[in-house]
Parts: sequence; C-alpha cells; structure tokens
Amino acid sequence: MSDTTDLTGAAFRRPTFESLLKRRFFFAESFEIYRTSANFKGDNRGLYDYGPPGCSLQANIVNEWRNHFVIEENMMELDCTVITPEAVLKTSGHVDKFADWMCKDPIKGEYLRADHLVESVLEARLAKHRSAVNDNPQKAGRLDDATAKEFEEILAKIDNYDGPELGELITQYDIRNPDGNGEVLPPVPFNLMFKSTIGPSAASPVYLRPETAQGQFLNFRKLLDFGQGSMPFASASIGKSYRNEISPRSGLLRVREFLMAEIEHFVDPETSKCHERFSEVAEMELPLLDKDTQLSGKTTIRVTSIGEAVRTRLVDNETLGYFLARVHLFLLKIGVDPSKIRFRQHLANEMAHYACDCWDAELLTSYGWIECVGCADRSAYDLSVHSKQTGTALVVKEARAEPIEKDAKKVEAAVASLEQQALEALAADLAEKAVITVSTEELIDGGTAVELSRDMCSIKKVNRVERTREYTPNVIEPSFGIGRILYSVLEHVYWHRPKDTARGVLSLPILVAPTKVLIVPLSNNPSFQPAVKKLASRLRALRISNNVDASSSTIGKRYARNDELGTPLGITVDFDTVTNGSITLRDRDSTSQVRASEDDIVQAVRNLVDCSETWDQVSQRLPAFTGQSQED
Amino acid sequence: MSDTTDLTGAAFRRPTFESLLKRRFFFAESFEIYRTSANFKGDNRGLYDYGPPGCSLQANIVNEWRNHFVIEENMMELDCTVITPEAVLKTSGHVDKFADWMCKDPIKGEYLRADHLVESVLEARLAKHRSAVNDNPQKAGRLDDATAKEFEEILAKIDNYDGPELGELITQYDIRNPDGNGEVLPPVPFNLMFKSTIGPSAASPVYLRPETAQGQFLNFRKLLDFGQGSMPFASASIGKSYRNEISPRSGLLRVREFLMAEIEHFVDPETSKCHERFSEVAEMELPLLDKDTQLSGKTTIRVTSIGEAVRTRLVDNETLGYFLARVHLFLLKIGVDPSKIRFRQHLANEMAHYACDCWDAELLTSYGWIECVGCADRSAYDLSVHSKQTGTALVVKEARAEPIEKDAKKVEAAVASLEQQALEALAADLAEKAVITVSTEELIDGGTAVELSRDMCSIKKVNRVERTREYTPNVIEPSFGIGRILYSVLEHVYWHRPKDTARGVLSLPILVAPTKVLIVPLSNNPSFQPAVKKLASRLRALRISNNVDASSSTIGKRYARNDELGTPLGITVDFDTVTNGSITLRDRDSTSQVRASEDDIVQAVRNLVDCSETWDQVSQRLPAFTGQSQED
Repeated sequence: MSDTTDLTGAAFRRPTFESLLKRRFFFAESFEIYRTSANFKGDNRGLYDYGPPGCSLQANIVNEWRNHFVIEENMMELDCTVITPEAVLKTSGHVDKFADWMCKDPIKGEYLRADHLVESVLEARLAKHRSAVNDNPQKAGRLDDATAKEFEEILAKIDNYDGPELGELITQYDIRNPDGNGEVLPPVPFNLMFKSTIGPSAASPVYLRPETAQGQFLNFRKLLDFGQGSMPFASASIGKSYRNEISPRSGLLRVREFLMAEIEHFVDPETSKCHERFSEVAEMELPLLDKDTQLSGKTTIRVTSIGEAVRTRLVDNETLGYFLARVHLFLLKIGVDPSKIRFRQHLANEMAHYACDCWDAELLTSYGWIECVGCADRSAYDLSVHSKQTGTALVVKEARAEPIEKDAKKVEAAVASLEQQALEALAADLAEKAVITVSTEELIDGGTAVELSRDMCSIKKVNRVERTREYTPNVIEPSFGIGRILYSVLEHVYWHRPKDTARGVLSLPILVAPTKVLIVPLSNNPSFQPAVKKLASRLRALRISNNVDASSSTIGKRYARNDELGTPLGITVDFDTVTNGSITLRDRDSTSQVRASEDDIVQAVRNLVDCSETWDQVSQRLPAFTGQSQED
Repeated sequence: MSDTTDLTGAAFRRPTFESLLKRRFFFAESFEIYRTSANFKGDNRGLYDYGPPGCSLQANIVNEWRNHFVIEENMMELDCTVITPEAVLKTSGHVDKFADWMCKDPIKGEYLRADHLVESVLEARLAKHRSAVNDNPQKAGRLDDATAKEFEEILAKIDNYDGPELGELITQYDIRNPDGNGEVLPPVPFNLMFKSTIGPSAASPVYLRPETAQGQFLNFRKLLDFGQGSMPFASASIGKSYRNEISPRSGLLRVREFLMAEIEHFVDPETSKCHERFSEVAEMELPLLDKDTQLSGKTTIRVTSIGEAVRTRLVDNETLGYFLARVHLFLLKIGVDPSKIRFRQHLANEMAHYACDCWDAELLTSYGWIECVGCADRSAYDLSVHSKQTGTALVVKEARAEPIEKDAKKVEAAVASLEQQALEALAADLAEKAVITVSTEELIDGGTAVELSRDMCSIKKVNRVERTREYTPNVIEPSFGIGRILYSVLEHVYWHRPKDTARGVLSLPILVAPTKVLIVPLSNNPSFQPAVKKLASRLRALRISNNVDASSSTIGKRYARNDELGTPLGITVDFDTVTNGSITLRDRDSTSQVRASEDDIVQAVRNLVDCSETWDQVSQRLPAFTGQSQED
C-alpha cells in the first residue's frame, strides 16, 4: 500500500475508508449472497454493483463529462452496441493481439498475470531489503547493492516487457507464486475478450467490445455526413466495455465490466494536428512524466505549461496538448486533488497495438499511481484497416483552400492527351458529380492529342478536380475509465473530523455529490411534517436531489451519516420554523450554519447547486446561526 | 403494416419516415460497412447504433425518467453488472424457462419463431380473404366464414399458446415457411440468453442478463439497510439487457441488445398493496384492455378512472394502479400521442414465469400495438427462490404498530408448556439476538409444562417476540423498454408540412428534443461571426444544447434540416443584429417568429427549455417578427 495522506494531512487508512464505502453502499461485489453461499463455485471476481450513492455519483460524473466535453465542444455522441461480430475485432487486431501474458502454477491450478507476478515479487524483495538496511544489517533479505538497483530499474519500466522477456526475468530471478512458492510455467498470451455466439444456429461468433472506439470508427462516414463534411470533428461514446482480466484484485481499479467514456477526435494529418482553441489552455501548467525519464529508471515529474511542452515537442502536437489540459480541468472539477495527478507518457512496448503515442492521466491512490484517462494518438490505424477489409472508403474529400496552381498546366496537357472515349467518360462523370478525383499521371499516360469540344468538358471544370484532396484522418483518443476515476476521487475527498475518527467525511464537490440536500426535522414531532414535506417538494421541483432523515437519531448523528454520504448541504426544521418560517442551512465541510426564511434558503441552495455562489459568499450574505449547537 | 395517421391526420408512410431517420442518423444497423461487404457472413441482425440525435434523444428520455420516477419518488438507484453467473439465473428460472419456441425449416436451414410464424401466415390468409370479400367474390383466398372467425379468435389470443399448442395449429392449418413454402419441424424451445465464460480457466459459465431486475433482488438486504429499514421502498436500474432473439425484424422494436429502465417496488403483502400517493392519481382516466375481453376474442378498450378500476378489482391493487397512472403521465410528457396508448392485461400463458399479474402499456405504431412498458406483479417469487438457494434471509423484520394482544395468552401457555431443553435454547437465542421469531403453534406443540426461572427467560421478552413480524416483500415491477418507447415517440411526433411532402417535421417536446436551439447566421458574411459565437457560448454556459449551421444553404433549407432533427427553436443572426443587437427566435411547429434583444431572447429560450413558459406565452409577450420571410 502506498503512503498517501488525506485532505488534512493525516495518514490515509484504507480499511477505515473501505468500511465507509461498504457501510454506505457506494458499491459492493456483485452477487454477494451467492459468493458467501457454500454451494457456489466459480471465478466471479472483478464485478461490482453500485449502490444508491455510488450510482448517483457515477451519473453526476457522466453528466459533467457530457457537459465538459460533448456539449462544450459540440461533439457527436454515439451509442453503439456492446456485442461485436468477430470479423470487426479481427480487423482491428483485438482477436490476435488484445491479450495479457499469464503463467500457470500447475500445483495450485492458479493463473497469474505475468507482469503483476514479477512486480509483486520484486517489490516484496525490495521491501525486505530496505527493512534490513534500515533496521538490522544482519536481517535476512538484504540484497547486494547492484541487485537492488537492478530490481528498481526493472520496476520503473515493468510495462515495457513482452511475454518472453517476462519469462526470462522469472527464470533469472527464480520468481515463484507467492501463494505456495510453486514454480510457474512460462508466460502464454490470454485474450481478454469475452466470447459468445449470436442467433439460433450458434454459427456466428461475437465478442463483448473491449472499448467503445470501434463503433465510432465504423460509423465514420455517417458522422462526417452528419457534420456536413467539416473537419476536424469529434465523436464520443459513454458505455460499458468488457475485459476478462486474468486475476482481478484492487477493487474498482481492475474490473471485468466497466463504464468508459471515449472521444475520437478526427483530424487532418496535413495541418500538423494543430487545434483552434489551443491558445485558451496554453498557459495551463501540467505535471508531466515523459518516456525518456522513465527509461532512465526515474519517475521525476516536470511541471510545464502545455504551450511550452508542445513547443519543445515533449508533447507531440496541439490537439493532444489541448486534450491533456481539458482532461486536467475536468478531473479537478469533479474533486481530484491537484497534488495527486500526473500525466505519464507510455513506453514503446506498453502501448496498445493501435497507438503511436500515448499519455495517461494517472491519479495517486493508496494503490499507487493509477491510469485513469489514456490520451492516445491512434494515427490512421483503425480507419485504414477497416477500409481495407470492407472495401469502403473511409476518407475525407475536401477542397483545397489554395488550389495547386503548379499543376494547372499538367492538367491541360493531360486532358488534351485523352482519347475520345476516355474524354466522354470523364465528361459524363463530371456531369453527374460535383467533384471527381483523377490523378494527372493517369491522364498523361493516355495517348494521342484530341480537340476539346465545349459540351464535353471545360478546362474550368478540370481545374476544380485539382482543387480537392482525399485523406484518411488521424485520430486522437482521450479514453476515460469512469470507475477508476470515481474510486480515486473518493479517496481524494475522504478525511475525518479530529474529534470523530470513527466516522469519515467525503468532501465531494456539490457538482457531483450524490444527494445535494439533507432535510432533518429536529425530532419526530408531527408539527414539523408540513414544513419538511413542502421543502422536499420545492427542491424536487427544482430537480435538486434531497433526502429526508426523520429517524429518531440525534441531529448530530444524522448529519454524521450524511457527511459519510458526501451530502454537502443540510437543512434543519425546528420549532422556530413552525412559528416564523425560518430554517437553518448547514455546510458539510465547515459545519457552519446560516438561518433565514425558506425562500432565501431555497435560493441559496439553488445558487450553490448551480455553482453560481460559494458557501463563503452565502455565509457572508445570510445571518449566521448561533443558536443551539446541532452537532453532537 | 397497420393503418396509422400522423399528427395532421394524413396517412403515415413508413418508408418516408424511415428515410428521414436514416438520413438524419437517429439510428442505423450496427457494423453497416461490414454487412454490406461481400466477405462478411453471419447473423448479426437486431443490433442498432444510435447516431447523435438518437443518442441525445435517448439520454434526454432517460434523464426525464430519472426525474419522473427516481427523484420524484426517492427511489434507490442501482447499477449492477450485466455479466451474471449461471447459478443466479438458474435460481431465477431463466436458465430453464426463459425461452421462445422455434421451428426449423430444414430445407432453407432457417429458424422461425413459432408464434410469429402462425401469426404472420394467418394474418396473410385473412388479408387475402378480406380482399376477396370486398373486391371479387370469385377471387382465390376466400375462406368460409367459420374459418375466418377461427383465425380471428386465434390471433386475438396468439400470446396464450405454448409450444405444443403452436405445433398443433401449424399441423392443423398446414402452416409453412412463407419464404419457399417448406414444411417446418415441430416447435422446440430456444433459450434467449447469451452465454459466455469468465476467467482464464473457462470453467465458470456466465450469461448476459436478460433483465436488470436480478441485481436489484440480490441487493435487497443492502437496500433495506440503506433505507434504514423503512417499507415500502423502490429500487431502480437503467442499463443494457440482452436477448438472443430467434429472428429479429421490425427495426428498433425487436433487438438483441437494448436499454431498459426497471423499478422494483417492494411492498408489504399484508397491507394489501395500498399506496400512500394513490389519491393523487385516482381521478386519471386510463384506456384499459383486460384479459377477459381478450379471451372473448375482442380488443375493445375501456376508458376508466384508475380509482374506479382498482375499486372494481379490474386492476388488482393501488400500487399497480398508481404505477399505471404514473407511466401514463411519463409517456405523455415525452411525446406519446394520447390517442395511441392502451394498457393491456397479460393472458395467463403469456406471462413470464415469475409473474402473477401483468399490465403492459402498449403504443400504437405502424407495426401495430407494441408493448413498451410492462407492469408486473412478481409477488415474492424472486426473493423467495434466491433466499432458499443461498440460505440468506431476504425478509423484512418489523415491529407491529399494534402488538397482537390476543396472542399474549397463547404465548404464556406456550412458554409454560416448553420442555426444559427447548426453554434453554430459547433463552440462549434471546440473549444473543435482539429479536427472534417463534410461532406460537410450534411452542404449543411442545409438551409438558415446566416452571420458568427468571434468569432463563421472562414473559416480557416473549411478548417482544410477539410484537415483531417477519415477511418476504412482494414486488411490483414497472419495466421500460427505452428503445421501443423512443421509436414509438418518433412515429407519434412525425408529420410533414402541407407544402413540403419530401421533408418531415419531428415535433418532439422541448424536454426531450436532441438539440434545443439552432443558430443560423443569415449568410457566411464574417460580420455575423461574433454574435453567433457569443450566443452559442451563452447558451452552452446555461447548458442548453445548441448547434450552429453556417453552411451556404438558404435559411429555409437549414431550418428544414433542423425540423427533421426535431430542433424546437431557431435563432437567426442578420444585419440588424450587427447594428442594433436584436435577434429573431423561431418556433419549429408554427414557424412563427419573434424579434427582441439578445437578453430577452436568451431568457425566453431559458424559460421554454425549463418548461416555465410556452411558445404561445412567449409570442404574446415579445414582438412578432414580420420582416422578410426567412422560410423558403
């Protein structure tokens, strides 16, 4: 477990944190009553259900993602099927290459992911070594300095080894299954896709998609048409994807069914991937960890403005840089701790088979740095392979802003050299279509010169042909793992009040908090009921999610429960409410309260929820509540 | 194809309508470039991708569903996995019973769904018969009157036949594959679930869930805890489900992967399923078609207030009635034509294996009446079978509001009658648990009387046992097929302007319209750019989706394109905008326009989008635009 600290600087204790998430049903392992039942067998790890607060948090993150990316940039959102025919994923390379390396322990009958095996064994040996160095030089487990250095270097580039290389490391360092110390067989590839068949005959193999991207590529022509042909453009998809992980652990961080949000930004490769709105983000400073630094065995983060990073080609181009900056903004908005984020460039062997450059947004958690958003440059890979396989042109045809004047003479010569029949075909083609593409080389190969007649073809029209070009767009793909982001945010916003270490607080931003307002009547005295009902219904009408807790617990306990649920605002209805209509509003993080009329409080809640006012502003504007303390 | 009419009373022409949906990329068959490719084989029908307008419409319907049901009723939303272990679906009955009957045509090698085969062949024969009766008595295909009547009666209860019965009909009426006229083999059941395996060993079979309900049942205990034990409560889930349909046709109406939204309302069976808020809907009139009417071979709709329907037990109970009324309201809100909706009760054989009563909300489309929402009473079926299989109590334990005084004496007698050993066990049990459940009958069967010692058990404690009861809740389940609803709404809001039959209009309510505002500069004159950009950014900041069309088409054409996309509002920027800042706002349905300052128009748009003002109100308040006509 990495040493991380919470918002107050106190050590992060994962067991206490996990107990909160479980107690408040943010999420739980799926089929729990079956897992715990004696007659249930089988491997069903890596599957999680979101309970009400987790589900609402997820919906709010997705909603903000849609606002921040899809609506803000006018992206074209698609919802494509999860079920995908084998032919599509054969072409994309996933059937042959989307695999992890695994080792079987023949004694235990257990399968282990090869890189994770090497990583965990070497990390354990290094930990023993360090403990020996620090505490007791005679203690077992001390390595010689050269070996310790070797291990550190291997770990820094662990993602760079392929299967045979991992096999060599396993042999060289006698790496065994930590559970039972059995030797393992050499690594073999295991395809990560779930397979099924469709239709009654069982003759049609299909897979569950491992990413949402393929549906977007296959719809490229329709998207280009929908956008009336303009470039660049982006599509986006939010949906489940599936990876049959070999041995998933680490809770929500490695699961077999997960929600993804992916953007495919299609760009003209000739314009060097520059981005119209890059200047809006150029000054933003980002924490970067490039591949050269990692290959030198280090993990030093360089904080650089994204403008500078693109200028020096640390980040390849403006479009990639623009998305890194927008991703950074998004993550901060939904509650990521700015000190726990870095952008790490992929190493060559680590990259997916379709990518030519990739930067991950990684978030620091108690499990270490976790890849949460991948920003890959997929170049023209996917469109090219699908186009080749299906015989469908997946290209952009566009008019050149400046016609290529130097070719005008060639065209004249070429047309002049055409035979009668070829010329007629050309004229017919032109009459039918606005623009056709003909290479001058072919024309020149034609033959003897003939005279042009006006009604067949004019030089002007031939010039229009020369004004167009055809190209396969390149693709920049920011790809978000929503579950990983959600888990990391929960770690980042978790802390506990100094006086109450048993209960935590989740300081989720109001934008994504599962429930915005808790309404608590002082007691279950029936006279509070009308005010409580009216408030709940007013807030509902404003589409502000709220929850009434009229249980018999003390107000303090009811607030503490909702601190754990991350509810940012609390309204108390008491005897003064019944007599003069005033209510109190409490801020989760500071526990400070204001008191005002129902109208004023509802307006303040509205402003806080749509982020047009902060709590500081509200508490300066409305009278502080200094009556009886309502905390325990 | 059924005879339906559009909003203007004109005949509904499906080909024109489908061409619009395709042209505007509401949705399309998945993997189209593969389907049309020569070297692609396999059955991949029944899979659809939503393009930008379809995807946005779907997101808006889902969002309104969440507001109308989840937030309005404080339901607990869950997001559970699609991948489900075989054991779970074995228990729920789906592995054994979730099947349709299919017939193989051995000559064609084709599989046909048995009920659809009988239905289509008898419908075709009846159509021929009617045409002969009406046009020409000598024409072939005329049936004798008794046979025609038989066919009509079979069709009215087609959903009531099981496999062997369908087999008899096929033999009796010599029903063959319409494609080739080949005889078909007798019906056999085909399980509709997609199967796969999980984990590297391939020893763990899993299915893709056929409904979202099971995840909600399995989490019952956590949900009850989350709601602090109060009953009744409802959970809800929105997510993809999968059914490997035998031979899907009918576009979005029968697909293999689809979005569902399901509510599980858990209710105490002892309180007769009454509903706290039933009085709010009791006066609502609903179009009902009960099972007795159908079994008599008729389809007459009875319009009844839901209060009356529950009072006469036409609808079994208040909770079911409440949901039927809420479903009705929801459907109208998102654009369903009130004259094209009915609630039909299921026939006995038609019901799913877990249901004891079911009413479908059906919508009339050009494919006939389509089941879009099923409201089933699943009784205690699912909780009981899972509880039995896993040994986990899935029950509610609650204090009785009024202790059952009449039993006090029985308890006294019973306890007095216990043998020493039984008494000690009871005392130990009581010491450990707060509440235990013991039936007085068992106690009375005990045996000889013994004396009670104070440290073993007191009468007071035994009375506490009597104050609680334990029960398995019953479940009322409204289950929504989002894709079917979406398609039916599109049919219901489609029409075309009298002067322009080539182009359609989709009068989608502003609440669910994919894009709310179209912004059109009069031409591509650069002086319009600043106003256009500012408007788009103001609307984005208010999270109002908008689209700029700065193409070179005429304004009329640009509006016509957006009428087909269902965009309800249009803003024109022209030369007057540049000089005095005024802009025009156009209403899609009436094409009437108003002109005012940017601030006034933005405010009007805001009111229209959040439904606080109607177009009629806006157009009475703001000056009509009577300048140049901007329509073609």
